[in-house]
Amino acid sequence: MRIARFSIDGNVAFGAVEGDGPDGLVLDIIKGIPYADFELSGTKVPLEKVRLLPPVLPNKIVAIGRNYAEHARELGNEVPEAPVAFFKPTTSVIGHGDAVEYPAFSQELHHEAELAVVIGRMCREVPRERVKDVVFGLTCANDITARDVQRRENQWARAKGFDTSCPLGPWVETGTGLAAVAAGLGVQCTVNGEQRQLGTTADMLHSVEDLVVHITEAMTLLPGDVILTGTPAGVGPLSVGDEVAVTIEGIGTLTNKVIKRG
Amino acid sequence: MRIARFSIDGNVAFGAVEGDGPDGLVLDIIKGIPYADFELSGTKVPLEKVRLLPPVLPNKIVAIGRNYAEHARELGNEVPEAPVAFFKPTTSVIGHGDAVEYPAFSQELHHEAELAVVIGRMCREVPRERVKDVVFGLTCANDITARDVQRRENQWARAKGFDTSCPLGPWVETGTGLAAVAAGLGVQCTVNGEQRQLGTTADMLHSVEDLVVHITEAMTLLPGDVILTGTPAGVGPLSVGDEVAVTIEGIGTLTNKVIKRG
Repeated sequence: MRIARFSIDGNVAFGAVEGDGPDGLVLDIIKGIPYADFELSGTKVPLEKVRLLPPVLPNKIVAIGRNYAEHARELGNEVPEAPVAFFKPTTSVIGHGDAVEYPAFSQELHHEAELAVVIGRMCREVPRERVKDVVFGLTCANDITARDVQRRENQWARAKGFDTSCPLGPWVETGTGLAAVAAGLGVQCTVNGEQRQLGTTADMLHSVEDLVVHITEAMTLLPGDVILTGTPAGVGPLSVGDEVAVTIEGIGTLTNKVIKRG
Repeated sequence: MRIARFSIDGNVAFGAVEGDGPDGLVLDIIKGIPYADFELSGTKVPLEKVRLLPPVLPNKIVAIGRNYAEHARELGNEVPEAPVAFFKPTTSVIGHGDAVEYPAFSQELHHEAELAVVIGRMCREVPRERVKDVVFGLTCANDITARDVQRRENQWARAKGFDTSCPLGPWVETGTGLAAVAAGLGVQCTVNGEQRQLGTTADMLHSVEDLVVHITEAMTLLPGDVILTGTPAGVGPLSVGDEVAVTIEGIGTLTNKVIKRG
């Protein structure tokens, strides 16, 4: 099932994305909380009539750097033995169709297309074989990075944590399992329709299972928390006016326009 | 005014800490939200009858590394030109009297006594002269660090972000201005009553004003967000059973016991 969060006429709701027919996609409004018990209300609205919002409201976002060998090398970094985990703040989250604001403190924004994992249950010290039980679903992410700032600053809070640096969406797909991720989902990034990144999640150095074990050794994950699983090779600059799209095979396409802030 | 958050008989409230008389400290329960308009209810409870909670519920915690030259040098690091900003997650926050849980993935926890700044207003790109207007108050923090993990891992999400690694409290002092911080407040850490760290905020390389400007160049701060301003020299190991206390002059003392997790 694909679960979107949206606003219509000033109201915010979750809905299940349905259909592919002549009327296009439709949202069936959800009663209840997607992470717990919920039912479909039967009240349907056309997707084109709503504004999609970030599909989750994370408490925290744990992102992973250098999780594809070819990408680590393209930036001149060693391939790390352990996952490189860092945080993006909730204030960085935007949804499908929202604008990425080019901040004044950087002159070199890069796109980084990533598979994002949405957590469904509060968990800590998750055993490898239980990881599948704490994953709620998958979505697309763009780990927008101020590359010049990242090079200058030892920790990446500003370089990867500025407002609008974490597009998520368009929805959470709950029907694609971790076996499919391991087998390989395509991860693509286009800028103005031109392909920049094309990889497969089969090339992740540390699997989703590895990452959840690694992160929850240290900290509790909460329902709605998000793990960004790293980006394949091909990262590159974004300019004001660009339209950047992240597509994860079987999940969806997350599109955002880059505008000048202010 | 000193504003605490506490629970009593299963209810959670904010209260103003009053008195120093024969009855000890008393909490006057606050009606409303401390960051906005509020009044004192006149309903008073003795401090000793309540459980103090973390005095704020931050959306994010931005911490600063190596903000005292002598501390940077004691760990063999260069004194950085720009502030080193990183995040601690909300799941790391505990209050005065709560236990720091020694996690299984580290064998070398360190204390780091720090002045914490609590933000009172939503803000971005704050001009230097307006920083005082967005600061709500000051509290004590202990930036508990898994030093062995920090040495091994390029980014500090796990080393400084594990559960219970961010004691905050005991309350927020709203009456101490940034001029007093610049002039110098004592920052002390004791372990089992023995002094380990003693510094002054006058030695901060980057002032509170500098830090708020630097952080809000990139990201929005929200009411209740917290900035940890770095630790003076003298950091060192904690063991299970230790009682660690952070005292900021004029603010208060934050005490936590270290226990084995699990």
